[in-house]
Amino acid sequence: MRQQRMLIPTQRDVPGDAEAASHRLMLRAGLIRQLSSGIYSYLPLGLKALQHIQAIVREEMDAAGAQEMLMPALHPAELWKASGRWDVYGPELMRLEDRHGREFALGATHEEVITSLVKDEIHSYKKLPVTLYQIQTKYRDERRPRFGLLRGREFLMKDAYSFDRTDSGLDDSYTSMYNAYVRIFTRCGLKFRAVEADSGAIGGTDTHEFMALADIGEDTIVHCPSCQYAANLEKAVGRIPQLAESLDTNNDSAVSELVKTHTPGVSTIKQLGQFFKQSPAQIIKSIALEADGTPVIVLLRGDYELNEVKLKQAIGAENVTLLSEDGILKLGSTPGFIGPIGLQNVKIIADVSIYGMKNAIVGANEPDYHLLHVDLHRDLPGLTFQDVHNVAEGELCSHCGNELSFAKGIELGHVFKLGTKYSRSLGATFSNENGVTEPIIMGCYGIGVSRVLAAVIEQHYDEQGILWPETLAPFSIHLLTVHVHDEMQMKLSQDIYTSLQNAGYSVLWDDRDERPGVKFNDSDLLGFPLRITVGKKANEQMIECKERRSGKQYELMANQLLSHCQSFFQSGGISNHE
Amino acid sequence: MRQQRMLIPTQRDVPGDAEAASHRLMLRAGLIRQLSSGIYSYLPLGLKALQHIQAIVREEMDAAGAQEMLMPALHPAELWKASGRWDVYGPELMRLEDRHGREFALGATHEEVITSLVKDEIHSYKKLPVTLYQIQTKYRDERRPRFGLLRGREFLMKDAYSFDRTDSGLDDSYTSMYNAYVRIFTRCGLKFRAVEADSGAIGGTDTHEFMALADIGEDTIVHCPSCQYAANLEKAVGRIPQLAESLDTNNDSAVSELVKTHTPGVSTIKQLGQFFKQSPAQIIKSIALEADGTPVIVLLRGDYELNEVKLKQAIGAENVTLLSEDGILKLGSTPGFIGPIGLQNVKIIADVSIYGMKNAIVGANEPDYHLLHVDLHRDLPGLTFQDVHNVAEGELCSHCGNELSFAKGIELGHVFKLGTKYSRSLGATFSNENGVTEPIIMGCYGIGVSRVLAAVIEQHYDEQGILWPETLAPFSIHLLTVHVHDEMQMKLSQDIYTSLQNAGYSVLWDDRDERPGVKFNDSDLLGFPLRITVGKKANEQMIECKERRSGKQYELMANQLLSHCQSFFQSGGISNHE
Repeated sequence: MRQQRMLIPTQRDVPGDAEAASHRLMLRAGLIRQLSSGIYSYLPLGLKALQHIQAIVREEMDAAGAQEMLMPALHPAELWKASGRWDVYGPELMRLEDRHGREFALGATHEEVITSLVKDEIHSYKKLPVTLYQIQTKYRDERRPRFGLLRGREFLMKDAYSFDRTDSGLDDSYTSMYNAYVRIFTRCGLKFRAVEADSGAIGGTDTHEFMALADIGEDTIVHCPSCQYAANLEKAVGRIPQLAESLDTNNDSAVSELVKTHTPGVSTIKQLGQFFKQSPAQIIKSIALEADGTPVIVLLRGDYELNEVKLKQAIGAENVTLLSEDGILKLGSTPGFIGPIGLQNVKIIADVSIYGMKNAIVGANEPDYHLLHVDLHRDLPGLTFQDVHNVAEGELCSHCGNELSFAKGIELGHVFKLGTKYSRSLGATFSNENGVTEPIIMGCYGIGVSRVLAAVIEQHYDEQGILWPETLAPFSIHLLTVHVHDEMQMKLSQDIYTSLQNAGYSVLWDDRDERPGVKFNDSDLLGFPLRITVGKKANEQMIECKERRSGKQYELMANQLLSHCQSFFQSGGISNHE
Repeated sequence: MRQQRMLIPTQRDVPGDAEAASHRLMLRAGLIRQLSSGIYSYLPLGLKALQHIQAIVREEMDAAGAQEMLMPALHPAELWKASGRWDVYGPELMRLEDRHGREFALGATHEEVITSLVKDEIHSYKKLPVTLYQIQTKYRDERRPRFGLLRGREFLMKDAYSFDRTDSGLDDSYTSMYNAYVRIFTRCGLKFRAVEADSGAIGGTDTHEFMALADIGEDTIVHCPSCQYAANLEKAVGRIPQLAESLDTNNDSAVSELVKTHTPGVSTIKQLGQFFKQSPAQIIKSIALEADGTPVIVLLRGDYELNEVKLKQAIGAENVTLLSEDGILKLGSTPGFIGPIGLQNVKIIADVSIYGMKNAIVGANEPDYHLLHVDLHRDLPGLTFQDVHNVAEGELCSHCGNELSFAKGIELGHVFKLGTKYSRSLGATFSNENGVTEPIIMGCYGIGVSRVLAAVIEQHYDEQGILWPETLAPFSIHLLTVHVHDEMQMKLSQDIYTSLQNAGYSVLWDDRDERPGVKFNDSDLLGFPLRITVGKKANEQMIECKERRSGKQYELMANQLLSHCQSFFQSGGISNHE
């Protein structure tokens, strides 16, 4: 393509709220433009990269035996009401009425639609297993759209759904999708990890999130540098201490008796630490909650955070909220000074992080008082210990015992064993070999296609602009004519352009009548793998190459170019040129 | 692909409201399924055909120099308010509010979005002309969705927009798109005509609709079998009689005087014809209208229909409605018996079809009376004659004088010279060579991509099923194994399947354990160009071919198949086999 007439509106300045590098670069390189908050147009270069990702996704999904189809974005409300999600989904689900007053949702995901379709079309075990997928536009009315394509309200997604007869069939479908995801993200040039994730309230079992490692990421990945363990913060577990039947207290240093101390206005962990000159690790945080209507006190190490997902699983609760002030007073305690000692009629859950703790500080359940020298074993002998805290950096890996690290990640995709949640609620069943009706066993598998585009840029850029992986670059080669009024340069450029195109390379030819500095800067910004400059040595048939990623620059004779390109792209965008 | 596990749910019966052949066949062949009225899912086979159309559209648009991009479906209301269409578009435009109460439209078309984008990105004549296109999902809340994909509420469209500096530039862009459309529809195997269409109130000049000829079509095409003239009914004109300055009445047969006749309860053209035993062509229909608030009487031949578009243009009105009963009485007339003679203070427009009419019948402007023996020239000497009727079949072609014919058509696409309507209302300007700011001159060009799919089937089917054009068939070859438990048949089928796939053919292999009758019927229904049956002569390496379109059937040795396929598909799906 010739650049003069192409819509590639590069720009120097971007809005101040463009915090993410990918967001800034996609605006600056003219890949996208915002139409409304979280809603973007893809300009020609942005769409080309997006289409390259789609092609990779399609190839790998097809290779994994999945069948492509395409479902609508307008979903009748009845389907979402049947699954129960019309009410549960909240304001993220965009809703509208048609001219006859019938309610619709703009599809945020397609479990309802696909399950209802499969219910009507598949009735026999003979037609199972089957995995169906689509690449389609999704709508989620995010409370705070941001980071450009990383968190949008209208975005492109690949969603796949597997339908199996048995749990082991689901295992196979899941593994097949998992492996396809590994190939897809690898081909996109991404550094990523598949992390164990929480399956939430959906009732599934296994689930993995594929996370691109990037500082802008909104998710925390806990991973072990020594072994392959990785999980998101909701799911991650550290090494749990051995919980002995009875603690051997003989070889302990002498334990002091409980002391009630006046701590006027001192109620936060930080204040307590300063007041007593103690590490927060010696303070026990007591959190009063209401779990499905019943009060619960959770005890945590002062420097640890509660993991709500783990807590829900530990106590089998669906909804957990903070207990109201009234509720705290009814327990016989007081806000800001809650503690486990002396409380009656309330369930107490102790996190494993405080197992065996001595000489601890807790609230005294009356205003402005704390208890010192608490020995959990002595003072609260019947405590139940469970893992209900977020893993902290430096905790030990439960697999290999080395210290766990944290990283930030962008969620690229998600594989999920749904089980029978949707097939049961929507009535998708099959008759098995014996003629008995059973619910179909489902899995679902998503990739944020437009988010992948942003994540790739988030991992591939430098000060000057984008550093496209060869597989996704909108064009492989940027041909740049320094002076378009120079006949010699134009003639040589035209010859090179034609021969590269004939050889099957995608080439953008910068034939604009602009200052060379502008053109070189734009070229670095656009960031295609190889730049070929036709300048003042055109009369000698000499051209200049620049490899965008390595920055290597060198001269070549024009007639060497084709074989040079061949070796450059065959070696994955690294030449042997010295 | 192997058919056993593919989602191709063929069916015998379809809903009774599936009137269109394409609708019935797409349901029966398992190409689509309805999710809600006018909203469909594409199953794997339907999507493959749709993707083939998309690929053709893309190739021809790219070849015409258009650049692909992708815009959102969610449009902020402000843009549509700025263009004035938020109020004008009516209930067809689907609307919703986001979680913050901001109004959005679901894009029915993208003039506002693209114009606003170009306004921000293009400012100089140097960047013009440019044509941008997208293939994207559109939303129109049709009052009466029907005929499957022919009139849906969520559908796939290719929309392109050209931006030019001058009118002659627009002419070039328009011609380029027009020619691309001819290539696209030809490659899709469609019989179509480009017809002159009315440019409506948008204020453009040229516009053509591309119509597929099909009886189910909702549009009437007027065309001349002798020359190339074709127009839609709104736009079509027949030969206009010479309107002389004064009529020579000397050589007429003696004209009787006006007679007022009692016609009790006789008011329609049909009743009058029967009452007076006269042809409707001798009766003058008087239609009382209100044009932009002013009463108008239109006179038409009794058997002709008013063309509202022509009338609006003739009198320069924007809104034309029927005059109320009160309005008619105020004119001194009476409903059902309106006539032009004796009416004061009202503009009278006479259609050219009644020019020079003598001995005509008109209403007498009082209840139950008509006037006979009307001579327009004598009784209404100052009449203005204009073409405000729908052309009737058999009228003469204004180009060549032969009789015009009618046909029914499905609108496939539309090319339109918009001019500056949107660039002016949204402020999209450029500075010309002299630094003077001018509005950009626009054209818009649409193709109903999903409608093309239905139109193709509407033109290509028989009693047994679909007859796919080679360019669009979901698979080129249907390989059918008669008995899947016969090892010989399966072995030969597998060999053929592999060798055809290796040779680059797309093959669906019916490896289902079904009765042969079911498989042959399904194969005819799916309608791929070539069927290869592996049956009881597998032990002799003998197979059977059936050409779906011609119905030709013949046996072949398996080792002849590849060369046979090559000649079959090279000749466009017609073999020389005897």
